Order: sequence, then structure tokens, then C-alpha cells
Amino acid sequence: MYHGPVADDKLHEECGVFGIYGKEGMDISRTTYYGLYALQHRGQESAGIAVAAGGKIKYYKQMGLVSEVFDDSILESLEGCISCGHVRYSTIGDSHVINSQPLVVKYRNGSLAMAHNGSLVNADKLRGELEQEGVIFQTTVDSEVIANLVARKDRGDILEAVLETMDCVRGAYALIIMTGDKLIGVRDPNGIRPLSIGRKDGFYMLSSESCAFDTVGAKLLRDVEPGEIVVIDREGIRSFYYHGPRTNNLCVFEFIYFGRPDSVMAGKNIYMARRRAGVNLYRECPADADIVISVPDSGTAAAIGYSEASGIPFMEGLVKNRYVGRTFIQPRQRQREISVALKLNVLGDMVKGKRVVMVDDSIVRGTTSRNLVRMLKNAGAVEVHFRVSSPPVQHPCYFGIDTPTRENLVGANLSVEEIRDKIEADSLGYLSLEGLLEAVGESTGYCHACFSGNYPIEK
Amino acid sequence: MYHGPVADDKLHEECGVFGIYGKEGMDISRTTYYGLYALQHRGQESAGIAVAAGGKIKYYKQMGLVSEVFDDSILESLEGCISCGHVRYSTIGDSHVINSQPLVVKYRNGSLAMAHNGSLVNADKLRGELEQEGVIFQTTVDSEVIANLVARKDRGDILEAVLETMDCVRGAYALIIMTGDKLIGVRDPNGIRPLSIGRKDGFYMLSSESCAFDTVGAKLLRDVEPGEIVVIDREGIRSFYYHGPRTNNLCVFEFIYFGRPDSVMAGKNIYMARRRAGVNLYRECPADADIVISVPDSGTAAAIGYSEASGIPFMEGLVKNRYVGRTFIQPRQRQREISVALKLNVLGDMVKGKRVVMVDDSIVRGTTSRNLVRMLKNAGAVEVHFRVSSPPVQHPCYFGIDTPTRENLVGANLSVEEIRDKIEADSLGYLSLEGLLEAVGESTGYCHACFSGNYPIEK
Amino acid sequence: MYHGPVADDKLHEECGVFGIYGKEGMDISRTTYYGLYALQHRGQESAGIAVAAGGKIKYYKQMGLVSEVFDDSILESLEGCISCGHVRYSTIGDSHVINSQPLVVKYRNGSLAMAHNGSLVNADKLRGELEQEGVIFQTTVDSEVIANLVARKDRGDILEAVLETMDCVRGAYALIIMTGDKLIGVRDPNGIRPLSIGRKDGFYMLSSESCAFDTVGAKLLRDVEPGEIVVIDREGIRSFYYHGPRTNNLCVFEFIYFGRPDSVMAGKNIYMARRRAGVNLYRECPADADIVISVPDSGTAAAIGYSEASGIPFMEGLVKNRYVGRTFIQPRQRQREISVALKLNVLGDMVKGKRVVMVDDSIVRGTTSRNLVRMLKNAGAVEVHFRVSSPPVQHPCYFGIDTPTRENLVGANLSVEEIRDKIEADSLGYLSLEGLLEAVGESTGYCHACFSGNYPIEK
Amino acid sequence: MYHGPVADDKLHEECGVFGIYGKEGMDISRTTYYGLYALQHRGQESAGIAVAAGGKIKYYKQMGLVSEVFDDSILESLEGCISCGHVRYSTIGDSHVINSQPLVVKYRNGSLAMAHNGSLVNADKLRGELEQEGVIFQTTVDSEVIANLVARKDRGDILEAVLETMDCVRGAYALIIMTGDKLIGVRDPNGIRPLSIGRKDGFYMLSSESCAFDTVGAKLLRDVEPGEIVVIDREGIRSFYYHGPRTNNLCVFEFIYFGRPDSVMAGKNIYMARRRAGVNLYRECPADADIVISVPDSGTAAAIGYSEASGIPFMEGLVKNRYVGRTFIQPRQRQREISVALKLNVLGDMVKGKRVVMVDDSIVRGTTSRNLVRMLKNAGAVEVHFRVSSPPVQHPCYFGIDTPTRENLVGANLSVEEIRDKIEADSLGYLSLEGLLEAVGESTGYCHACFSGNYPIEK
Repeated sequence: MYHGPVADDKLHEECGVFGIYGKEGMDISRTTYYGLYALQHRGQESAGIAVAAGGKIKYYKQMGLVSEVFDDSILESLEGCISCGHVRYSTIGDSHVINSQPLVVKYRNGSLAMAHNGSLVNADKLRGELEQEGVIFQTTVDSEVIANLVARKDRGDILEAVLETMDCVRGAYALIIMTGDKLIGVRDPNGIRPLSIGRKDGFYMLSSESCAFDTVGAKLLRDVEPGEIVVIDREGIRSFYYHGPRTNNLCVFEFIYFGRPDSVMAGKNIYMARRRAGVNLYRECPADADIVISVPDSGTAAAIGYSEASGIPFMEGLVKNRYVGRTFIQPRQRQREISVALKLNVLGDMVKGKRVVMVDDSIVRGTTSRNLVRMLKNAGAVEVHFRVSSPPVQHPCYFGIDTPTRENLVGANLSVEEIRDKIEADSLGYLSLEGLLEAVGESTGYCHACFSGNYPIEK
Repeated sequence: MYHGPVADDKLHEECGVFGIYGKEGMDISRTTYYGLYALQHRGQESAGIAVAAGGKIKYYKQMGLVSEVFDDSILESLEGCISCGHVRYSTIGDSHVINSQPLVVKYRNGSLAMAHNGSLVNADKLRGELEQEGVIFQTTVDSEVIANLVARKDRGDILEAVLETMDCVRGAYALIIMTGDKLIGVRDPNGIRPLSIGRKDGFYMLSSESCAFDTVGAKLLRDVEPGEIVVIDREGIRSFYYHGPRTNNLCVFEFIYFGRPDSVMAGKNIYMARRRAGVNLYRECPADADIVISVPDSGTAAAIGYSEASGIPFMEGLVKNRYVGRTFIQPRQRQREISVALKLNVLGDMVKGKRVVMVDDSIVRGTTSRNLVRMLKNAGAVEVHFRVSSPPVQHPCYFGIDTPTRENLVGANLSVEEIRDKIEADSLGYLSLEGLLEAVGESTGYCHACFSGNYPIEK
Repeated sequence: MYHGPVADDKLHEECGVFGIYGKEGMDISRTTYYGLYALQHRGQESAGIAVAAGGKIKYYKQMGLVSEVFDDSILESLEGCISCGHVRYSTIGDSHVINSQPLVVKYRNGSLAMAHNGSLVNADKLRGELEQEGVIFQTTVDSEVIANLVARKDRGDILEAVLETMDCVRGAYALIIMTGDKLIGVRDPNGIRPLSIGRKDGFYMLSSESCAFDTVGAKLLRDVEPGEIVVIDREGIRSFYYHGPRTNNLCVFEFIYFGRPDSVMAGKNIYMARRRAGVNLYRECPADADIVISVPDSGTAAAIGYSEASGIPFMEGLVKNRYVGRTFIQPRQRQREISVALKLNVLGDMVKGKRVVMVDDSIVRGTTSRNLVRMLKNAGAVEVHFRVSSPPVQHPCYFGIDTPTRENLVGANLSVEEIRDKIEADSLGYLSLEGLLEAVGESTGYCHACFSGNYPIEK
Repeated sequence: MYHGPVADDKLHEECGVFGIYGKEGMDISRTTYYGLYALQHRGQESAGIAVAAGGKIKYYKQMGLVSEVFDDSILESLEGCISCGHVRYSTIGDSHVINSQPLVVKYRNGSLAMAHNGSLVNADKLRGELEQEGVIFQTTVDSEVIANLVARKDRGDILEAVLETMDCVRGAYALIIMTGDKLIGVRDPNGIRPLSIGRKDGFYMLSSESCAFDTVGAKLLRDVEPGEIVVIDREGIRSFYYHGPRTNNLCVFEFIYFGRPDSVMAGKNIYMARRRAGVNLYRECPADADIVISVPDSGTAAAIGYSEASGIPFMEGLVKNRYVGRTFIQPRQRQREISVALKLNVLGDMVKGKRVVMVDDSIVRGTTSRNLVRMLKNAGAVEVHFRVSSPPVQHPCYFGIDTPTRENLVGANLSVEEIRDKIEADSLGYLSLEGLLEAVGESTGYCHACFSGNYPIEK
């Protein structure tokens, strides 16, 4: 196949979830559609919406962007009082509609829909145990494991079933579970993946990120807490808690790259954290230069912070093609450099004769970085000082992020000096973990295993 | 939605299955594609092929005709040594890709793919029991029930598991089960739905109908017997049997309408049985007429038989539009008569001034019949004697055929004379059940519950 | 590309046209849709409908079947008082939406839509002359040549322009021209391609074949005469005539294969002519046999006639797969025989031990014929006597029919005995031209150049 | 239709053109694909590529983005030595594949493909004159007018024909004309629409903007001059000139909004001009504020310039959803505010309690502007000073830009103070025309009719 994905050198989130508990006549499916639209950056492969009406669940899910999957007649056919939506990014190999979410199942106490963001570290073990008991699996997604557990443990009280399930599963999960008459939000006891509660006109919503609340005109109320189970139904909203230890280990990469800059997590605006990381980056890794530029769009907030702290003016030195689709026909070998050029181009007049600080949010493989340095040099930059507003990624993520294998993680194999040499920069500086944590705030703990190898949950 | 199905007044088969146990380099997926192509009349809504290679199962299924679902690159990606394919017709309401087959699952002893034709009478009960044990269901198809049972009973011996499953399920089923190294064919102990064994170049195949063997150049070996389990693997082909009572209750409607005329079931060619039914129809319900015509294409064989027996010449009086698609834009109320006219037109010169015997294979609702009689009369036919080469359909089918509700079954509500009046024919005659059974041959027993109410399995 | 057309061994019509002059609120576009549906056998590659409302023309055309190209919202957007529709079959190489029809153009006197069936013999010369005058051509269809001529000659009177255009163009053409307020039907002075007039509720329609009138509930009034120009507008229907010689040279192949059996052309029902051809075929080429079968569906009428004349019973010996789509994945070389088997299968019980007369309407290349003879022999037929209800095709058609090159026309290269040998039949008989002409009736003259080489128009 | 375009309050360019004169084996069609990819911002409705090989022209065009229209097999089928590509944006009403470009025609001297950016002011008159001479028009695009003129004037020398055509047509045009052996670039004598020449490995290319050269690894050589005709063929590259007056009237809006910031036109980098406009904007319309933000992405360069000149720090205050597709399901009336919220969101922490300068590149209707001011105020901005880096748009464009009708042009109907009031800003300032022209440089003249009403060509 020549139509390949537009490669980038980033880690990727795997999902976004959104749900509403409303009432008839509120355009529930349409609002869910807009909510998922706002979460599209968390997954572009498939989209789905399930709604409950009169105790019954209907759903539609398909491969594609939110704007491609749904049309007006589908949304019309999905009217209901409660909704549960999902967008999914997937790793190659399990890209099939069967794996799209929400997962909708019938079980002894009715129907439920489940939307999951995260990854279980003991999924294989649980699958194995369930299989030993005769369970069959039709998908490769963890939601199917969780749904089996909930169904088996539900003896009439879904809340109990969820609590018992939490005793079994280990890993990262932000879940929206919808039954015929309830909307339930669950966040794993370590709080690794985000989930927040919004309100509009007295009705509650759940979303991976608060930007979706802004989009639909709702207000962010608060985050679901680690280990908290939020049950929204006719009686209002109630909270229950996992009875084991609960800790704050929100994925710090949500602040670095995954989250939309306008979202608020752990009480902190993501953009502001990124800018602050840029400030700290300058303090740790100053450079003597004429201008600060960013690798757009993800490096811009940190670049602005770097500029503020250093007094070196922030300029745009790279221009992004706003129409890069999800796929394009891959260049042949001899045109390989076009891959980067299709997405980014240098503003020659801006960088010519300048000593340039280029700020990116992270380096994963390092391939794009070298191309960018070369492009700047070819355009006349006299020095290129590469600055990264996070530490080197050295460890794989087991909690739902698609990390390259260790041999492809440049930070796992080379020293900073070796990386600098490889990407042909004049200097290279990474933000320290401490600097990063200072930027994202002390209000909570974070999972930073990809940098530190310090996993909050053992595999 | 304005794009509705092209309505006809027929009962509908719900599925066709096809599978091969071959070896590498045999174009297994491609041959399966041609086999399903030959079985397309058994289901036009979705199509799927699973293949096993190196113990692993890959599959592709989608809504649409066989020719629409697959292209060459998909077939290339499905190369393997064993295959299991399916075409599906579905009732409105559960038309979703999630319900398409083969169903492919992982369970404790590996993977299996299952293609099912038929319907279980105790599916709801089994679902309920399984749900009580914690099972979740993602589809509305019986295959999921069966797959759950097999998985739960499989303690290392799939054959044992299938046998035990047969103890639980009651109803009609012709199954193809594919594991990583076996192809298994199963037919219910009453033998309601057909399944046959073919061979080509020393390799075995399974198919709902023998016409698929002819298409791919194989030979029909024999039918799978009622209650027989055929296991095809590296050691060849072996047969096992359900240990309860086994009877012959092949669905007689396969001979009347479902089966392709060139297929052989129960040792009897379907076309020949239809022609014989026409002979018997004349003997029971003679008419004094100038020509015999058929409602094409399904009434033609019986019309020819009627002509042979009566000496009244067979003529074509109705012409079928060969390009009627599966859907078309429905006429508005005031153009309702166009629905039939789009499909069938009268040959006026042939029927003008003639006393016409019109033979159809069955009458279900009776709506089309009246339109046809009127068309003939409008074209100048002086008498129209309607003859039906099967008895009145009076009872619903519980074994996989989509029967209208009782109030829409004209044979269940009106006497023959009342039906004659309703369809405005000058006379009306149905073949008796005895006449039908004589035509299909005494070699085996049949299920004729839709005519007799005599169900081989209690609901 | 592996998705190739379903090859058959037939000549192919290139187009069908249909138009209505009605009034607002008559569902003009919808009725045109049904009319084109009924003409789908005349062209399956593209479809288009133009309508005039308030003097303006809107249109929609696209690649695909009528049922695929249009949906309800498109038809809604095409409401008007006059319509002009087209279905197109095309030769490989000019299959592009730019070539689909109707051709809609603006010119000095407003807009016009043109739908054309046929082929001009002097198209290249006319193109050359027009190009010399500075005309540019955007398509490869003759309609563009005709539209250019009409536009250049229209000095305020479209009728005059059409008459003058008829002085220039030579060849076969049945045209529907729609202006903002008129529907015009034109048939070439030799009357090679068919065009007929229908009426419903006082409104007039034009159609390539009368079967479309039956479908939409209209009555066939009469054929447009060779060289006649029918102008339908607010003042009713008027006829004008080409002032040069006008002769009857209706393409005889319309009766043999192109036309739908329920259509009436030149006052004669096509089916009846085909049956009569079968009668004559027996008289000229009798056979001593047990049964007469046809190559379905096109050979059936003649087979029935052969049976009537001979007293040998007509039987169905070949079964057609009713779901053969327009395309399927081509078998690889080693599976080549599947191509025919996907479409036709033998009824072994019917032919086994029998001496069989097999009737087809024509033989073009002869490739399928041999396969069918072999299939019959393999199934146990003891003799196969091939009978063709038309003469050998020996000459290419210049009037709109896609004939193979001479080296592929078996009738142009081999004697009847050589063909018999090639197709491995026990005997082979073609109907004589005289026998054919007797069958289609003496009421008019015919073009039979493909048999006789006697072209009504020099190239 | 509920799937509407994602509305914005901007003027829209209508086309981009790209062509190469190369040789076999150079992946001409693929390189053209990448070139069009880089010009995608100039038109998203349809895309097309024509190539010449062996004197013959092949082409493919279709509705959709470049990445949607082409796949590898189409590009393979389009290999040639010369190419001519086009992307098109279209006004509602003429969105049909028939209007997509390049326009490919046959005429007396062979074939030619034509890709056009711009609009003729005398197109209707020319159409009328051509129609009087009998010409028919199949599209509504000006290319068809130009192609007719060229064809009629070409008596063997295409260059002469182009020169003569330039005597007739008045308006804006940047043309790429491809014959079987030549690539020709033409720019109107006023130089309104841009066209530039690039070179790679000794081969020449033409492109609307230089960013496409960067993308494919070529170098910008120079702009085609106003009234220049560049002929590229086997003999190299030669220039010819329109013999009438030639002036510099490049559309100044290319610098304000249309052009990609990394392109160079009239020797000036677009980004640098935008930044300079921001500097001048501050000088003309200072504001006492805490931060400068932009309406992303088009206002960012000017905002940075404003920040530089004022010393007020540049911050990002609005976040853009990077996955806004071309279409989405329109919100119902009661959810209207979602339209803007789907695209842009405020960074509350950034603007809260701040006096904000918000810079946009232009205001057309003003509807989005008010929404943005409200969003900022709702987020806590204490003052919002709106600054626009171009003058009020007061006059329609006749040269290829889709301007709203006069009543929708807020600048044409309201004073600056009235607009300020309408958009609810605390202050509003527009850059003067003088300030704009200073920013884009004195090197050339510009067309600024949309601001000044001073049209370089009379209508």
C-alpha cells in the first residue's frame, strides 16, 4: 500500500471518551458528536456513539474521523437520554471496525456500552483466566476484558461489579460505562489517564479533556479522582471509591503533547504548563542566539516560554502545511526528503544569518529532528540550538501509549551528545524531569515512567 | 430512507456457508470467493472469509455482495490453507457489520472461525443461561451462542466440545467451524439446513449447496448427514455422529425456492424436483387453457412440468428486468404500481386473447400475485388460472427463514377461494403436500412445518 | 486491475435514451429514473438526467448503474417540467465521466441537453472540419459533434438547425434534444437506431424502447419514423421530416439481442420475433434430438420456437447465476474455466444421456460456445447440436455497436464447419438472413450489415 | 444537506496551478502531486493532473482534496514528460466535476491542457461573442473561454495564438498551458495573479507559489512577469511579451491571506510582509495592553510584528482545533455558537484579567470577530483591542476572489466605529493602505481594489 499515514516523530494517545447524562429533546447524540470532534486529536482511526433511550442501547461506530463517520441521519437515529462516545487511534495490525468502540454488549442485567482510554498491564493474564473459564474474545481491545469482568461480577448492582472489577484489573483506564439508565465514569486508582466532569444546564458530562466541555458550552466541574467511580443517574451524581490505595499518577505526557493546550487537567491549564516548561528549559539549557523558533504546533508554547525567560525574540521559522491529510502517497526512495517538506517548510528570510534556538516538545526517534536542522542550515541559519521541553524518552509505556520499540527510541540508545551529533545540531538541551515537574505543578503526582523508568504499576 | 430493498413476495433464506481444507499455494481465498459467489442467492447483505495459516486466523467481512466486499488485494492478504466463508441475508433491525460472519473468536484453546446457516429454537434460553454465568453478547446472531458453548466445553478436544454443544442446542444449523488446523462441518440432528461435501484434486470442501462445487470445478461427494460431524484435517476426513436420535427433516423449501436449480440435495437435483412438482400440480389442479406461463425465474421449472403433463404449450408471458438492483428509490404512493412493473412486464402478444395458466412456486403475502393477474388481464388475457407448485404457507418458520407475521401470511388467513378472489384469478390451485413430497422424492424425510404446522422440533 | 467486466460473447448496444415533456408537480425526474431503469440493459456504465424548469437546465450524471447514480435527494434537486435521460455502455478507453450523457451546453440561443444513441460514420470528418473552424472538443462522444453543429446552425429556430444538421451528419442516431421549453426527438433518415413515442395522461414521452413506457404506466403511441423530427412543447406534438431520402433500416440486432423482449419496435414485439426466428431455425436446420435447451436468457425465445416447430420438448439445461455482478475478480490463468462457470451451470440430470439441441441468439467470438458444449458433454449429453437464431456475424458495425475486430469475429474467419469443429459441437446451424428477416416481419426494412456487409450508409 | 462547509470569515482564493517540463523516468505525475499538495490551501474542492507523453495527453480530475483524488495506481497511469496540475476552490452552484481543471481539449492542432487561476472581467462578453459564432460551452469556467480563443487563433503557432488571445481577454489570469510538447506559462499584463518559475536538476517548473518548489526540492528562479509568456520545450526556456502595456498589479491579498507564509512573491517573503504589517499596525493603531494575541493561524505573523513594535509580549490566547474537517454537521439554531467553538477556544489562564490586543489579518463579514471578542470577555479579558493588519474590505473583487455581496461586507456598510460597536471590542484599528503597501514593499505595484475601489482593469 502506498497510501501510508503521515508519519511524525511523536508518541500517540490511543483514545478519547465523552458521555452525557441528559434527557429527551436535548440533542444528546449531536452534542456528543461535537464533544468527540473536540477530542479528535486523541484518536483518528475510528469513532462511535452509543445512546440509551427507554432502557435500550443503540449505537453506531465506523472507521474514520468523527466528521466522516456520522451524518445527520445517523445522529437522528441515535437520539436518547444518555450517551457514550469514543474516538480511537490504533496501532497497525488491529485496525478493524470490530475493535472500534464503544463496545456494546448484552449481559444478564441488560445492556451496557463501554468506552475505554488506557491499557491494562494484566490484560493478557486476565484474558487467559477468562478463557480458562470458557470466555471467547472477539476483539483485541481491553474493553472486552473489562466488560466480561463487569458482567460476571454484576449480580444486580453494577456499582459493586465495577468495584470488584477494579480489584482485578491493573493498569491505566479512564472508562465511561453506560447502562440503560446510568452513566458511570471510572478512573484507575493511579489516575494515569485523565477523565473530567462537566456540567451544562444542570446536566452532567464526562470527557477525557475539558476542551470538549468548552466546545459544547459546558463548564468543567472537576476531574474524576484516581480510583473514583462517578455514577450519574436520575438521582443526580454520586461518588464511590476504590477501597485500595489511590495515588496521583497522571500521565505527564498529557501535558507535554497529548492534551489539547486549552484543556485543564489536575487543575492546571496545559498550555500554561508548556509555556512554563519553556521557561525552565531556558534556565537549564540557555543558548546564545538571535531568535527562538518552534517546531509547530506542539513546540510553540514552550518556545514562547523560552523566549520570555531568555529575552531572545520568539519568531516563526517553520511553516506548517495546514492541509496535510492523514494519508498521502509515500514518496519513492529517491524523494524521501519530501515527507518532511510536505509538512514543514523553512521561512528562509527569518533564519538566514541567524543563530537559532529551535524548541520541540519531545524527541522520540530523532529522524525528523535531523531533517529540520538540515533545512534550517540550508536556509542559512548559522547555528541551530535544539531544545526539547521534556527529558529524553527512554522507556516504553505500558499504559496505553504507542511507544516505538526500544531500538527506535533514540533516547534509550544514545547519550545527549550522541543525539546532538546525529541530528547535526550545534547544541542540544533537554529539560530535566525536575524542571518538567515544576512546570506541570506540584499539585499532584505524575507518571513519568517513559523518562524515569519508574512505573507506578509493575508489569 | 428512500432507498428500499426491491420487495418481493418470497420467503428468504438467511445464509450460505463455504469452506475448504487445502494447502498453501492453492489460492484458497480466491476459490472461497468463487464458492460464495455461487451461493450469493442465499444472502446478499454481508460476506466474509476467514482463513487459517500457520495456526492463525485472519479474516475480512463487510456489508455488501461478495463482488463488492472483496478485491484482489484483500484476497491476497487472506492467503492460507483452510478457509471458512459466509454470505448473509438479514432481517431489518440487525443489519450491522457486527452481525456479519464468519464469527472469529479467541478462546482458551486458540482461535476459531464459525459460519452458521440456520436458527436455534432455544437461542434465547441458551443466551439467558450463558448470561447467568456471566457471558456477554456483542451480536444478535446464533453463532455467538454456539461459539460460547463450544469454547466452554472445549477442554482440549474440539470434537468433544461440538458433540456436547449439540446436546444443548436445538434447532436448525449447518455449521462450518475452522480452527487453526481443522475444518469441521456440522449438520443438526434433524438435518434441516443443507450442507454437502465436495472434493477437488484430493482436497475437501464444504458448501451449503453443490452448485458452488460445480463453479470451482469440484465434485459433490455427498451430503453431510443429519447429526454428522465431519472433521477434515491433516489426517484426512473423518465422521462422527451425534449420539441422540437423528432424522431426515431437510427443509422442503430448499427444493421449492431457496436452492439454486442446479444444486443437488438429498441426492436429488432441485430443478428436476421443481419440474416434477409442476407435473403433479397439473394432475391435482388441471386447467383448460391455451398456454402455460411462469412467474420468472422461480416458477419456470414447475411451469415446464405443468406443460409437459398437460400438453398445453409452455410460453414466456412475463419478462424480467435483468438489472433490478438490490435497491431502488421507492415510488411515491401515487406510483406504487411501478414497484412490480420495474421487475416484471407482460408480453402482450403472447397472452392477448389467451386462456393463461400462470405458475408460481409459492404465494406468501399475495400482493404481487394480484398485480400480475391484473397485468395479464390488462394485456388481454381472457382467463388467468393461477397455479402454485407448493401448498399454502400457513405457519411461521423457526429454523432460519424470515417468515412474515401471521397476519401477513395470506395462506394462514384466507381459504383458497378467498385468496383466488383477492388475487382476482379465474381459478387458483395449490399443489398438495403429498404432491410436493412425491416430487422431491421419498428418499428422505422433510421439514414441511410452514405448510403442515408439523414442526420436527418443538419451540 | 483485477476487477474486470464479466465477459460475455455478445455484441453490445451503446446507449438508451428517455425523455418526458410534462408539467410541474409530475415527478418528472423520478419518472425518468424509472424509465432509465427499464432501459438499463442498453448501457450500464454511466447514467444521467437533465431537466428543464423555468427555461433553465439542471443535470446530474455519473459513472454507475441508474440505481447507483441517483438517490432521492438528487432527484428532488432535479425537479422540472421536461427531462432528458441517458444510460451509456462504453468501450474501454473512453470510460470517463466527461463522456457521460446527456451532454448539456450553453450556446447563443440558451441551453440544451442532448442524449444520443448511435454512431456517426462521418464523425471524424465533421470533427476535423469543425476543428478547422476553431472548435475545441472536450469529449470523445458524437453528441459533442452534433451539439456543435446544432448550435452553429441555430439562428433562432432550433428546428431549422436540427434539419440542417441532419444534412451534415451521416450514420445512426436516435436523439433526444431538450431546450428550455421543448423536447425534441430525432431519428436518422435510415432509422437505424430505435426511438418511440409514448403517452400518459395526455403528456408525451420519448424512449429508445417501449418497455420503458410500460414500466412508468404510459402507452406506446408509435415509433418516431426514420428522418422524422418530433417537437413536443406547449403547443403539443408536431412532426417534421428530413427532406432527403428516408428509408427503413432498423438495426436487426435489436430484435436478435439488444432490445428487451417485451419491447415493440416497428410494430412488432421483440419476443415474438425471436420465437419466430426459432421456428424458422428449425425449418432450416432441423436436428434429431431429445430436448431443446437455450443459452439463457437471450436464447430462450428462439429455443421455445424451435421446440414448437420441431415437437422436441423445450427444457432448461443451463442455469444462470442471478447474482453475477458487473465485475468480479478475474480467475488466475489456471482457473480460467471458472469465468463461464460463475455464470452458467449445467443441469446434469436434464441432459445426461440426451441428444441436446442448444439454441443461442448469436455467436460473436465463439469462446463461450465451446465451453458450454464441453460442459454439456461432461454432464453426459451424448450429442450437442448447436443452433444459432441469426446468421454468422461477419462484418463490423459502424452504427454504434461495439464489434470485436475482424480477427476476433469467428464468423468472419471460419466456415460454419470450421466453427462447428472449433466449438466441438456435433452439428451447427445458423439461421439464414432470409429466415431472420421473415421472423422480424416484412413491415419494414432492416440494417443487417453485420451479417451481409450491405451497409445502408457508406463509411 | 446538513453537511455544510466549515464557514470562516475570510476571502477565498479560487485556484492553484503547477506544471513541470521534464523527461521520462522523472516521476512527473508524482512530483506534480506533491506540488499540488503544497498548493492545497488555494483550493480544496477538486484536483486534476494532465500529462503529455509522446505528444498525447492523459488526465485525471475529480472532486476532493489532492490526497483523496489520487492514488498510486492513478499516478502510475499518468506517467509522462510534461504535466499540468490544478486545485480548485469553487463558489456554491458550480461545484461539479465538469468544472474541475485542467481543461483538456482537442482542437485542430492537437490537444492541449489548460489550468487557470484568476477571473476575466470580460468573460461574459467573450462567451457571448463566441456563442454568436456558434461555440457551445460545457462548463462555467473561464478556462473554456480562453481555450476556445486559443484554439481559434492557433493557425500552427501556439505562441501567436496565445498572444492574440491576450489581446481579447481582460482580467486576471495565471495560466499553465500544456501541449503535446510544450509547457507554457502566461501571466496577465497587470500581473494580478501570481505565477513563478522554478528549477530542479536543469528542468523547469511553474507554480502559483514558490512553496511548491520548496516542497519538491526545486529552487525558485523568478516570477513570470506581468504580460510574459514563458515557453518551455525541448529547446529550453524562452520568454515572449504581450505587446500592450504591462503593469505591476499583483493582488495584495496574496500577502495578507491567500499565499502560504513561506512563499516568495515579487521577491518578498509573505511571512515577512505580514510581520511588517503588524509593525506598521502598531505604529498606526497603538494600544495600551498586557498581551498581544492572534487569531490563528493567519493573524499570527502580524501579531508578532505588533508585539515587536510595541514591546507588548506576544502570547497565544486562542487555540485552534487541528482536526476541523472541511465539513461538519451544522449545529441547530440553538447550538449556533458551537460553530466557532469547534474551531477556536480561548486559553482562559492567558487572558484572564488581561488587557488584550487581538490581531487578525482581515475582517470580511465580522460575524466571527464578535464571537471571538465575546469568548475573550467571557474568559475574563478586561479589555479587547481588535487590530486588523489590512484596511477594511469595501469593494468586491472581479479578479477571481469570491467576495461576499456588498451588503455582507461589513467594511462597505459601517464606519470603523460602527464595526467596533458591532463586534463589541473596546477599540478597533485597521492598518491603512499606505501602511500595508509599505509592508509588502515598494518593489512593485499592487492591486488593492478591494480596499480602494481602484481597479487596475475596468469591468
